[in-house]
Amino acid sequence: MSSRISVIVWNEFQHERQSPAVQAIYPDGLPQVIARALRDTPALREGAPELEVGTATLDQPEHGLSEERLANCDVLVWWGHKAHAEVSDAVVDRVQKRVLEGMGLIVLHSAHFSKIFRRMMGTNCSLKWREADEKERVWVIEPSHPIAAGLGEYFELPYEEMYGERFDIPKPESTVFVSWFEGGEVFRSGCCWERGHGRIFYFRPGHEAYPTYKDANVQRVLANAVRWAAPRVTIADRCPMSPPLEKLAPKSLDFGKVGIVQHAKDLG
Amino acid sequence: MSSRISVIVWNEFQHERQSPAVQAIYPDGLPQVIARALRDTPALREGAPELEVGTATLDQPEHGLSEERLANCDVLVWWGHKAHAEVSDAVVDRVQKRVLEGMGLIVLHSAHFSKIFRRMMGTNCSLKWREADEKERVWVIEPSHPIAAGLGEYFELPYEEMYGERFDIPKPESTVFVSWFEGGEVFRSGCCWERGHGRIFYFRPGHEAYPTYKDANVQRVLANAVRWAAPRVTIADRCPMSPPLEKLAPKSLDFGKVGIVQHAKDLG
Amino acid sequence: MSSRISVIVWNEFQHERQSPAVQAIYPDGLPQVIARALRDTPALREGAPELEVGTATLDQPEHGLSEERLANCDVLVWWGHKAHAEVSDAVVDRVQKRVLEGMGLIVLHSAHFSKIFRRMMGTNCSLKWREADEKERVWVIEPSHPIAAGLGEYFELPYEEMYGERFDIPKPESTVFVSWFEGGEVFRSGCCWERGHGRIFYFRPGHEAYPTYKDANVQRVLANAVRWAAPRVTIADRCPMSPPLEKLAPKSLDFGKVGIVQHAKDLG
Amino acid sequence: MSSRISVIVWNEFQHERQSPAVQAIYPDGLPQVIARALRDTPALREGAPELEVGTATLDQPEHGLSEERLANCDVLVWWGHKAHAEVSDAVVDRVQKRVLEGMGLIVLHSAHFSKIFRRMMGTNCSLKWREADEKERVWVIEPSHPIAAGLGEYFELPYEEMYGERFDIPKPESTVFVSWFEGGEVFRSGCCWERGHGRIFYFRPGHEAYPTYKDANVQRVLANAVRWAAPRVTIADRCPMSPPLEKLAPKSLDFGKVGIVQHAKDLG
Repeated sequence: MSSRISVIVWNEFQHERQSPAVQAIYPDGLPQVIARALRDTPALREGAPELEVGTATLDQPEHGLSEERLANCDVLVWWGHKAHAEVSDAVVDRVQKRVLEGMGLIVLHSAHFSKIFRRMMGTNCSLKWREADEKERVWVIEPSHPIAAGLGEYFELPYEEMYGERFDIPKPESTVFVSWFEGGEVFRSGCCWERGHGRIFYFRPGHEAYPTYKDANVQRVLANAVRWAAPRVTIADRCPMSPPLEKLAPKSLDFGKVGIVQHAKDLG
Repeated sequence: MSSRISVIVWNEFQHERQSPAVQAIYPDGLPQVIARALRDTPALREGAPELEVGTATLDQPEHGLSEERLANCDVLVWWGHKAHAEVSDAVVDRVQKRVLEGMGLIVLHSAHFSKIFRRMMGTNCSLKWREADEKERVWVIEPSHPIAAGLGEYFELPYEEMYGERFDIPKPESTVFVSWFEGGEVFRSGCCWERGHGRIFYFRPGHEAYPTYKDANVQRVLANAVRWAAPRVTIADRCPMSPPLEKLAPKSLDFGKVGIVQHAKDLG
Repeated sequence: MSSRISVIVWNEFQHERQSPAVQAIYPDGLPQVIARALRDTPALREGAPELEVGTATLDQPEHGLSEERLANCDVLVWWGHKAHAEVSDAVVDRVQKRVLEGMGLIVLHSAHFSKIFRRMMGTNCSLKWREADEKERVWVIEPSHPIAAGLGEYFELPYEEMYGERFDIPKPESTVFVSWFEGGEVFRSGCCWERGHGRIFYFRPGHEAYPTYKDANVQRVLANAVRWAAPRVTIADRCPMSPPLEKLAPKSLDFGKVGIVQHAKDLG
Repeated sequence: MSSRISVIVWNEFQHERQSPAVQAIYPDGLPQVIARALRDTPALREGAPELEVGTATLDQPEHGLSEERLANCDVLVWWGHKAHAEVSDAVVDRVQKRVLEGMGLIVLHSAHFSKIFRRMMGTNCSLKWREADEKERVWVIEPSHPIAAGLGEYFELPYEEMYGERFDIPKPESTVFVSWFEGGEVFRSGCCWERGHGRIFYFRPGHEAYPTYKDANVQRVLANAVRWAAPRVTIADRCPMSPPLEKLAPKSLDFGKVGIVQHAKDLG
C-alpha cells in the first residue's frame, strides 16, 4: 500500500445548483465541502498516511470515473439523491469491480438508494424518512472501532432528516453508530461490511438542507472512515482451474457406491 | 404461513439433453431428480409442513417463473451451469424481489455463478475448481443447524468436482459445512445468509457428471434446507414518509450552532 | 425433539417479598406472572409444540436447579437483580454445561448482570441505566425473526427503567429489537447468540417496579423466544482422539525442511 | 496509542524442561522462540509500530502477570497445554479484565483449553485431535485480513498435530484460515473475535513436538496478529446511572394503560 490514500469524492452535484437554500449552506457545493473536510481533518494517529482528495460529478464524462481514474483510487466517497437513475450501469459495474478488488467505498446519507450501494448489498436499502428539522443524537456502539476514534459517547446534530428502521440491509459486520431521533425513531447510522477484498461504510447523516458536513464530529467520522476503508490488498478476480496438490487415488467411477449413507456416528 | 411449502426446482436442463454421460446418470434430468428427492425425503420432525414440489426450466416462457408462479412460491431451488447468461435480467429482478419479500432461495453447485446468486451476494462468487473424479468429505460445522439435522459428523461423496477457496462471498451468517478434498483443498460448502426477509442457502455438491443428487445425505440436506428457507413473513418493500411519533420541539434553524463539537465526555 | 417444550422460569424472587410497591404490581411474584404469560400466550403457528412451564427460585435447594431437573429442561428463563452474587457457582457451571449441550436460555432485563449471562458472554455486560418512569419504544429491526412474529413495527412501554448503550456484549448474531428512550438513549433490546449447541436470547424490558410482564407485546416476545430457543439437538461435550480417515504417508520427521516458506503464488 | 506495542509471551514452559524430544527442537524453550519470532519478523508496512517483547511463565510469582505488568501490556500471547489447571483464577480474572478494557489476546494451539480462552469464549472449546506427524495445509480464507498479509494462497506444515471440527467456539467474526489435514479433517485454524474493547485471535498450529514456530509463515502470522490485536482504545468498565439528555414528560404512573397492545400496523 502506498503511503498516501487517494480519495475521490463523488457527488451528483444537483441540489446545490438548483436550490438557493442548499446553495446558501454549501456555496461551493457538497463535493468541495466534503473534500475539504477530508483534507482538513488531521489523522489521529501519528504516521498515518496522508489523504489525497479529488472530486468527481455526474455531469463529467463517465461521471468522472474513468477506468484509469478508478484504477488509481483507494477510497471512493459517494453522495447522491435525486439522480440515482442517471448513473450509468457501466460505471456502476466498474465501481463494483474495484470494490471487490480491494477499493474502499463510503456511502453517504441518501446514497442508500444509489445503484452502487444496492448493487453491493443485494437488498432494497429502503427505510422510513421524514424532513422535519429534527434533532439526531448519534450513539457510539463500538467505541473501539477506528471509525469512532476521537468521538465521545455520542454526538448531536440539531437539524437533520429522519431515517428510521427497518433499514433493509444485510446484517452489518459492525454497527458503529445507532441514532436516536427526536420524533421517536432509531436507525443503524454507521454500518460496516466487507465485500470481496474491499470495505464498505454507510454513514446516515448528511441531508443537503442542513450544514451537517460542517459539523466537526461528522468530519471526524468521514476522515476516520476513509482511512479505515483504505485497501489492504488489491486482488483481481479469477476463477482458476487448479491442479491437485495431493496425489489422487485411482478411481473406478463405480457409481453403485453412491447413495449409501456414510457417517461416523450419530451425534444426537 | 401455510401448512404446505410450495417449492419450485429451477434448472437450466441443458447437460442432460446434450451429454449422453449425464443422461446415463440422470435419465429424467436434474430437475426431476431433485424434485423427487425433495418429495421422497421425509421430514424429521413430526408435524412439519409438507412440500409441494414443481419444476421450471430455462426453455419455458419466462423460464417458467412468471409473476404469478413466483408469487405463490415459498422456496426456489436453483441449478445452472452453462447457460447463466441466457437467464433474462427481468426474471432475475423478479426473483430478487421475491427473496427480499421473504421467499427462500437454495443455490446449488455451479449456480454459484448464476445471475441471481451474484445479484443477492453483491460479489463475484468465484472459486477454484477441478474436475478429477475426486473424493469430497463434507464436515458438519454446525450440528445444531436445522440443515444438518439427521446427518453424522461428516458424509462422503466418492466422486465430485473440486471447488476450492477462496470462495468470493460475503461472510456467511452460518457456515454449516466445510469440505475436505482428496486433492488438498477446503471449501465452505454450506453457507447461509438472510437478505431482506428471505433466507438463502448455498450448497456446494452437485456436479452433473456424478450421481450426487442420488446420495441419501445430499437429499437430506436439500429437504432440510427447503424447510429451513421457508418464509417466516412476506413483506412488500416500501420506503414511507413517516410522521413523527413524538412532539417535535419548535426550531429556529439557527445554523450557527452547527460545527461545535458536542460530546458527553472523552472515553479514552 | 419432544412435542412439548419444558420450560423453567427461574427468579430470585426477592423484590416481590420485600417491597410493597412491587408486590402491588405482582402480588403472585414475578416467577408466577412470567410462567403464566408463557402458558397463556398461544403459539402463532398451528402444530407448534406446547409449553410445559414450571418455576424455580433462589431459596430452593440448589436454587431449584438440580442436575435432574436441568437435564429435563428445554429452555431456562432467568430473571435476577439484587441477588446475583448469591447464586452458587456450581449451579452456574451446571446451567452453562446444559446450554452448551443444546438447552435454550432466555435472559431478562437486570439479569444482564447475572453470573450465567456474564459466563456465557465472556464480557462485563455493563450498560447505562436510569429509573425515571420513562417511555420506551421497542423497534423491530428483524421482522422476519421468529421472536418478532405477531408484533407490529414497534411497541411501546409507557414506564420503564432506561438501559443505554454501550451495552458490553459480544456482537449479537441477530439484533431483533432496538429501543428508543424518552430521555435520549438507544439500546439493543433483543439480542440473539448461539453458544455450543444452545441458543441465548437477551430481552431488555422487565423492571420490577412496572407492570411490564403484563404487557401483551412483551408476553408475545417471551412466548416466541422460548419456542425459538428450544433445543434442536442435545450433544454432550467431548474432545476425542480420532483415528485418521485417510491413509497417512510414511514420514521421516526431517525437521530440516521446516522454515522454508512455501506458497502457491503471491496474491498482492 | 503508543508508537511501540508492548507484548508479553506467556508460556507454561513445562514440556521443554521435561521432555528431551521437545528440548531438542526448542533448546531455549517455547517462550523464547516465540518472543524471538516476534522480534525478528519485520513489519510489512512502513511506519508500523515496533514490538517490545517480554516473556512470562507459570512458575513466576503471579505467573509473571502482576497487575502492574498487565497494565502496561498491549498484547498477551498465550501458550499452555498440560498445566491449564495450575493457572490461578485471580490471574485469569485479571487478564479478562484487561482484554475487555482493550488489550489484545493471541491464543496458540493447545491453549484452546486454557482457562482464559474458555473464559472469553463462554464455550467448551473442545475439538478432535490426533498426534500422527501429519501434513497440514493452512488455507487463507480472507486474504485482505491484516493477519494474512504477506502469505500466499496457503502454506504447509509438514508435521503437525491434527485438530478437527467441530471446534466448540462462538461463530468467529473473521475466519482467516481453514486447515486441510492429510488424515481427512478440516479445522478453522485462524479465528478472530472482539470482546469488550479488545481483540482475540486463535491460531491453531504449534504442537510442541514439531518445529512449527520456526516456520517463516507461522512467524509471519504471529507478527501480523500481534499488530492486528494492539489496543485501539483503553476504556475501564463502568455501569453508570445516567441523567436524561431530554426533558421527560410528567408521568401519572397510570398502570391501567399497560397491557394494551400498541403497534403501528401489522406487517404480515
